[in-house]
Amino acid sequence: MRDIVVFSGSAHRQLARDICDRLGVALSSVEMTRFSNDCLQAQLQANCRQRDVYLVQPLVPPTQEHLMELLLMIDAARGASAAQITAVIPHYAYARSDKKDASRISLGGRLVADMLSTAGVDRVMTMTLHAPQVHGFFSVPVDQLTALGVLADHFLAQDLSDAVVVSPDLGNAKTATQFARLLGLPVAAGSKQRLADDRVVIDAIVGDVSGRRAIVLDDEIATGGSIVELLDRLADQGCTDAAVACTHGLFVGKAVDRLQGHPHISEVVTTDTVPPPTDWPALKVRSVASLFAEAISRVHAGESISSLFDGVDPALGPPQPKLFD
Amino acid sequence: MRDIVVFSGSAHRQLARDICDRLGVALSSVEMTRFSNDCLQAQLQANCRQRDVYLVQPLVPPTQEHLMELLLMIDAARGASAAQITAVIPHYAYARSDKKDASRISLGGRLVADMLSTAGVDRVMTMTLHAPQVHGFFSVPVDQLTALGVLADHFLAQDLSDAVVVSPDLGNAKTATQFARLLGLPVAAGSKQRLADDRVVIDAIVGDVSGRRAIVLDDEIATGGSIVELLDRLADQGCTDAAVACTHGLFVGKAVDRLQGHPHISEVVTTDTVPPPTDWPALKVRSVASLFAEAISRVHAGESISSLFDGVDPALGPPQPKLFD
Amino acid sequence: MRDIVVFSGSAHRQLARDICDRLGVALSSVEMTRFSNDCLQAQLQANCRQRDVYLVQPLVPPTQEHLMELLLMIDAARGASAAQITAVIPHYAYARSDKKDASRISLGGRLVADMLSTAGVDRVMTMTLHAPQVHGFFSVPVDQLTALGVLADHFLAQDLSDAVVVSPDLGNAKTATQFARLLGLPVAAGSKQRLADDRVVIDAIVGDVSGRRAIVLDDEIATGGSIVELLDRLADQGCTDAAVACTHGLFVGKAVDRLQGHPHISEVVTTDTVPPPTDWPALKVRSVASLFAEAISRVHAGESISSLFDGVDPALGPPQPKLFD
Amino acid sequence: MRDIVVFSGSAHRQLARDICDRLGVALSSVEMTRFSNDCLQAQLQANCRQRDVYLVQPLVPPTQEHLMELLLMIDAARGASAAQITAVIPHYAYARSDKKDASRISLGGRLVADMLSTAGVDRVMTMTLHAPQVHGFFSVPVDQLTALGVLADHFLAQDLSDAVVVSPDLGNAKTATQFARLLGLPVAAGSKQRLADDRVVIDAIVGDVSGRRAIVLDDEIATGGSIVELLDRLADQGCTDAAVACTHGLFVGKAVDRLQGHPHISEVVTTDTVPPPTDWPALKVRSVASLFAEAISRVHAGESISSLFDGVDPALGPPQPKLFD
Amino acid sequence: MRDIVVFSGSAHRQLARDICDRLGVALSSVEMTRFSNDCLQAQLQANCRQRDVYLVQPLVPPTQEHLMELLLMIDAARGASAAQITAVIPHYAYARSDKKDASRISLGGRLVADMLSTAGVDRVMTMTLHAPQVHGFFSVPVDQLTALGVLADHFLAQDLSDAVVVSPDLGNAKTATQFARLLGLPVAAGSKQRLADDRVVIDAIVGDVSGRRAIVLDDEIATGGSIVELLDRLADQGCTDAAVACTHGLFVGKAVDRLQGHPHISEVVTTDTVPPPTDWPALKVRSVASLFAEAISRVHAGESISSLFDGVDPALGPPQPKLFD
Amino acid sequence: MRDIVVFSGSAHRQLARDICDRLGVALSSVEMTRFSNDCLQAQLQANCRQRDVYLVQPLVPPTQEHLMELLLMIDAARGASAAQITAVIPHYAYARSDKKDASRISLGGRLVADMLSTAGVDRVMTMTLHAPQVHGFFSVPVDQLTALGVLADHFLAQDLSDAVVVSPDLGNAKTATQFARLLGLPVAAGSKQRLADDRVVIDAIVGDVSGRRAIVLDDEIATGGSIVELLDRLADQGCTDAAVACTHGLFVGKAVDRLQGHPHISEVVTTDTVPPPTDWPALKVRSVASLFAEAISRVHAGESISSLFDGVDPALGPPQPKLFD
Repeated sequence: MRDIVVFSGSAHRQLARDICDRLGVALSSVEMTRFSNDCLQAQLQANCRQRDVYLVQPLVPPTQEHLMELLLMIDAARGASAAQITAVIPHYAYARSDKKDASRISLGGRLVADMLSTAGVDRVMTMTLHAPQVHGFFSVPVDQLTALGVLADHFLAQDLSDAVVVSPDLGNAKTATQFARLLGLPVAAGSKQRLADDRVVIDAIVGDVSGRRAIVLDDEIATGGSIVELLDRLADQGCTDAAVACTHGLFVGKAVDRLQGHPHISEVVTTDTVPPPTDWPALKVRSVASLFAEAISRVHAGESISSLFDGVDPALGPPQPKLFD
Repeated sequence: MRDIVVFSGSAHRQLARDICDRLGVALSSVEMTRFSNDCLQAQLQANCRQRDVYLVQPLVPPTQEHLMELLLMIDAARGASAAQITAVIPHYAYARSDKKDASRISLGGRLVADMLSTAGVDRVMTMTLHAPQVHGFFSVPVDQLTALGVLADHFLAQDLSDAVVVSPDLGNAKTATQFARLLGLPVAAGSKQRLADDRVVIDAIVGDVSGRRAIVLDDEIATGGSIVELLDRLADQGCTDAAVACTHGLFVGKAVDRLQGHPHISEVVTTDTVPPPTDWPALKVRSVASLFAEAISRVHAGESISSLFDGVDPALGPPQPKLFD
Repeated sequence: MRDIVVFSGSAHRQLARDICDRLGVALSSVEMTRFSNDCLQAQLQANCRQRDVYLVQPLVPPTQEHLMELLLMIDAARGASAAQITAVIPHYAYARSDKKDASRISLGGRLVADMLSTAGVDRVMTMTLHAPQVHGFFSVPVDQLTALGVLADHFLAQDLSDAVVVSPDLGNAKTATQFARLLGLPVAAGSKQRLADDRVVIDAIVGDVSGRRAIVLDDEIATGGSIVELLDRLADQGCTDAAVACTHGLFVGKAVDRLQGHPHISEVVTTDTVPPPTDWPALKVRSVASLFAEAISRVHAGESISSLFDGVDPALGPPQPKLFD
Repeated sequence: MRDIVVFSGSAHRQLARDICDRLGVALSSVEMTRFSNDCLQAQLQANCRQRDVYLVQPLVPPTQEHLMELLLMIDAARGASAAQITAVIPHYAYARSDKKDASRISLGGRLVADMLSTAGVDRVMTMTLHAPQVHGFFSVPVDQLTALGVLADHFLAQDLSDAVVVSPDLGNAKTATQFARLLGLPVAAGSKQRLADDRVVIDAIVGDVSGRRAIVLDDEIATGGSIVELLDRLADQGCTDAAVACTHGLFVGKAVDRLQGHPHISEVVTTDTVPPPTDWPALKVRSVASLFAEAISRVHAGESISSLFDGVDPALGPPQPKLFD
Repeated sequence: MRDIVVFSGSAHRQLARDICDRLGVALSSVEMTRFSNDCLQAQLQANCRQRDVYLVQPLVPPTQEHLMELLLMIDAARGASAAQITAVIPHYAYARSDKKDASRISLGGRLVADMLSTAGVDRVMTMTLHAPQVHGFFSVPVDQLTALGVLADHFLAQDLSDAVVVSPDLGNAKTATQFARLLGLPVAAGSKQRLADDRVVIDAIVGDVSGRRAIVLDDEIATGGSIVELLDRLADQGCTDAAVACTHGLFVGKAVDRLQGHPHISEVVTTDTVPPPTDWPALKVRSVASLFAEAISRVHAGESISSLFDGVDPALGPPQPKLFD
Repeated sequence: MRDIVVFSGSAHRQLARDICDRLGVALSSVEMTRFSNDCLQAQLQANCRQRDVYLVQPLVPPTQEHLMELLLMIDAARGASAAQITAVIPHYAYARSDKKDASRISLGGRLVADMLSTAGVDRVMTMTLHAPQVHGFFSVPVDQLTALGVLADHFLAQDLSDAVVVSPDLGNAKTATQFARLLGLPVAAGSKQRLADDRVVIDAIVGDVSGRRAIVLDDEIATGGSIVELLDRLADQGCTDAAVACTHGLFVGKAVDRLQGHPHISEVVTTDTVPPPTDWPALKVRSVASLFAEAISRVHAGESISSLFDGVDPALGPPQPKLFD
């Protein structure tokens, strides 16, 4: 069996170190040089020849810098005769550019997938893409993990009587339904209404939330605007106590201000697919490092990734039989 | 300016002829041969050299046969030195295979897009893909048309007082909202509930439909099962008069039996992206041949396709500025 | 050494099972789903990760269905991180579309080879392509097996005195010559005359067949028309006893009627590269499952395939030195 | 309409000049430099930008030099922003490497086709490929011309009573049959027998040649050995007067010695797809320059190439409908 | 002839406007959106269909942002059916990453060239690549312009008696020699000595500079460190009056401080391939907008680019015959 | 670990045998056939399946023949299911065609690199490319070795007092500087002056050589003209004793005459990357076979190649950290 070598760009070294700890391998060094003309150069400081190389780099701000770092590391690994190169991208931010909803716009989700192939990647490992169709933008195999089990474990340690899982968006309520089943809870959802072409509000809650404690689940929280609006609608329905959970906790712009200390929020739970904000001590961060380490370990041993999520729920992880509708 | 040559496989010659009529060109012949071992061979019977070739073929049952016909025609056109080959696929059926929701399944929507490129296509023209992300599966430019204007014209000729547009699925309600704006009507939607992994029911109607006449809008109707279920829910809410409209009227399996003569259905309107059923005289079919002809004509003249939908609604057609959320 | 996983589409499960039996591995399951719009989806039911995947599927009628099944299985295996994907196509029917003998026709033999590459195949294993040049249509390595040894074994168990091997076509007599040498017999051949552009007759027999028992050898028998005509010419020359042997026994159209019980035919021998007809009990089917199993086993062990045919005849199997003229 | 620019490597400048004369354009210069390390470099001496570039170069000995010249010219034309690059290869010598008839041999016919694509060619124009399947080795469109009309014109000026067309090889007799029909003559053919794996003799003549004058037709004559052997067999049958015709008159090795002054040969006719030998004054060379010029002219004007051969015979030229068997 | 459409990213709008002015076309708008997760999206605000699209974007800091903008604009233009997409990159900064002079480093110059191809560019227009070999990193045609004529014009307006052209680096003295010939001046050069692996000094001046006025010519000035060192060496040789000229005036870090007001510098001349510093009023900027406009105009008209530099010097511009050594 | 199989074309069998000796494997046979039409065909005479195949072939005259042999061997190895194909090209002659210094010229260095990829090579192993940028022409990993250590060993066995290393060209003096450091000697260099566009002379020596013994180092000696000229300039400076060393000793044209017995030359040392001349007994040839064998062995074992040069000098071998300037 070939050796594993793990490198990290500058996007999220802590996660890379944590994954390496669980894998029992050392994180290898990368020298990232910035020249006077602002061009970047990557040098991998460990032998890659005939090895399985894993490059850990979520696409977090500054996104273009981190993307270029990742591409240059892939290029360097290929030139150094790596046997197989896996880009471990816990948060694939360009998945948001997934459709042409205006004339002559770029389709970044597909373009970046193609650029990764051009640089020489053999496989991508990621977590919870914004839309499931984005999987099809890649021409290399993609292993998509889920943090639902990790987040569920957090809540299963609590008293969940009278709780209800709430999805901010009916259109994406399928994941919330899976989450609710894991917790043995009912599910509700916000209904988004498009006021104008460029403005969306949540105008209704589908499902009964009155007098219940909400567990709001979203895949990604950026500015937190939608969550705050959802809390207002929940309050309109008599629900003023909410826990907020998400996989990708970006918390950019006013997000920390909005959510930290919000009167209706009992706690916010997220994962470390992206570096957590440093100015929010109460934020609860559940690590997905073990999940990624286990997935890497299984890829390496030729074992199934989907079975990694068997203990949680057949519907959770990478795709399972019979879910197609 | 180069000449246009249009060919059609056996999937829907009537539509091809109608498009040609509006373009003012003759539909050129294809000899499709089936050998004793069941292999197909296409021969294009008109000169393709330095011409812009358009191949009209929706992917309707028998889907694999029609897909292979299309691929062979593309191959033949490329070998015959066509300047540019456009596959006109009014219904791209494989768009339904757009995500990996089970382990180790094929992703037909992307695979077929890649096969079209392998055969040599330069551009795809289609109508209303099942999910907007499917656009990103193609590595060639895609012109996606919409039939909303055509369907709206149908209803604008009627008295619409007390009518409401209803989407069977809240997740896809955006299109219904656009349609409602075109008609100056409110919008409502069914809320799908996932009972088990393999069973979905519509359990609620979001929006007020009581005492109103419903105009149900869907992108595609196959067996009609969801529509009938939606009609039951609408009836529960006091709405027993519905017009049903869809872009792709496949009407397979028991669809004709279910919908023809259903007591709550006042009329069913569809387009001719696929060949209409022959045993349903009351079905109202609005042709999209003029739309395709006009789009081909604009492609040929280097004019904008998006402006083709300007007179209808900026939000309708191929993408417009400012819609990204 | 990596594990072998074998899957089969619906074209010829029996052959797949027989190959697996000889390999000592279980045939893994595939769930092939047909949606209401007639699109297909393949789900491989066994772990493929880092494994050598073999997909057994001859291209037999309905050919387009079986081709699409094969492409979808390849796509699924690639997405599931198979180490190496081999399409085992005992009968590659599209090899008949191997030349442009009319203007603007498709070249299916090359197009399908390219489509297999697009889907992600790494290697093709097949038997007796219609023309040896078709090998060059593939951009991936091809292992081409021969059934001549298997067929020769059948006849070597008989009394061959006064027998002669007869090729229906002088142009393809090279294979018959090899076969004759294996049996220690002389060879004769029919001479095809082209009456008109679309009509061919056998008008002469080259070689002495009078009073001898003929062993007619062809690569593929579809409708059986040419064989019957050859028998008439043989009878003209005083030869009224013929055994008929072929590699690919398609027997479509009137073939069974024509050949079963033909007064001059003593026996018909074929292989199981395609499923044998069920209504012809006297047909003798020699299995090539062992040959394919042995070839797979050698590919897997990195052993030579050509030496697999050493015991039979240096000129038989996959190419040997010195045969180029 | 774009301008045409024609260049020639050193393989056959006379043909290039003759084609240009008929096209009415000047042959543009190429500076081909050989460095002290024997590497070649091509410089095109005329503007190629947005022009249709034609590079005339048959693959004649020294074949590797001429092939590299052609590849370098294509590379230079692509770098110089040519709109479309056509390699005019009247004799594609590597077509002889068209099958894997020995273990682990190269397949030069396909490899060279791929190399032409890599260099950047957009189209290939050639004449009479050794096997029709070689067409399928190319991933770019191929226009294959035929010299049958030109050769037939030569004989139609003679008294053809008692003449018969003879093919050296029954396997390739289809072309001879077409030629015979053009001349209104019967056809005969030699039957090749394989004595050993590496030795072939002509052991019989199929068809009646006794007392007739033979017109022997072959696609290519290299050393002339087969032709001389055929003449012996014809003499055995009482035919001692033969005209010899071929498309590609390579005449290498002892060919000129063997054929010039052979007692049974009345005349040898060939074309100028390759440079004729300079030491054979009696050789009759019919030029195909006009055919290539006319084909280039039609490609440029977007007219059909196949119709170029309409006046001769529907079965002659580039493929026609209905010939597939 | 197709229409020209010109777009500009945010790297250097002024140059794009100036090029458009000279071309007589309006600069079309691009809406570049930055999402809350820092991903970029480009929308081209003018019809691209069947048009020749030019995207003006030098790779200046922030380089990764500008590179991604360029890639997204290319992607958008391709998806919008542009006939031909030319990236106009006056300064291709990644050309500095042109060799592997350490183990396992990335090769950004090649990687970015490949990424441009992946996005869909058809041609690149640039000026003075850092090394001439970088041309070979691109798989699409490259038009490389030179500013030598523009810079020479500047000095030809002066009294040049007793002047000498000085190259900072003997290794790259070829360009200085061409420049000197344009001005009718002698040439000298600094000799770089490598003190340690990571430190280089100029330790000698080859050629006579004593008592002369130097015109120092470099392709790119970034921090200005080498230039200042060269001035010290020139002063050692009795030359204390220097004009400094360069094509790409990046002037990053301390460059402006070092060069502005340096006692030995009489003037600094550069071009506008990159945006000039705003805090250096005495800097003389000669525009290359006309050169780019003329080159675009010639590309469009299918005229030669190399002849654009004929009036200046055969050795200047894009390559000329006979220069290979 | 997979088996190694080594083949050699006809360019330099002795080197291939020597490499095999050091590797402890037998050199496998290749049958290279030349057909009567001058086309080549390669047959590999040993099993390649699942093996690591190494093809040893420097590009020496006749260069086109040897290049085609190499391409055909790669093609054959790929078709024979080799696991990994490495082209060992000790002298990559086409590296000299590395820039476009004239209009519309070919760029052979890149084209040949692309052709190797098309044929199916997975990796290239070479020695001392003419310019370091040529590395970037390849899309596959390149291992570039250096002979500096081998050449230094030769001189370290001598008395080096009063010696000086001399580079013929200041522009390439970096390598000479490394060599001088290995020997503990000072360095000097010739300064090339361009008299006219097509003529270059060495007009000066930078550095002190008077009264010293010169060790002239060049990467490649072809005709020897530059070296002789350099010796004249050295003599002008009072240096009449020179040893000459180079990596690639082509010695074509008058080279042997010029250098053998030149009064100022004490010895000429080269390596066996190319076959040494047979008529020059005094030429000292140091073999690089051990270096290549060790590199192959390390590639095979997945060990670092760069560390192979650690004992010599960190700056010598394949790239090391920190050298980028």
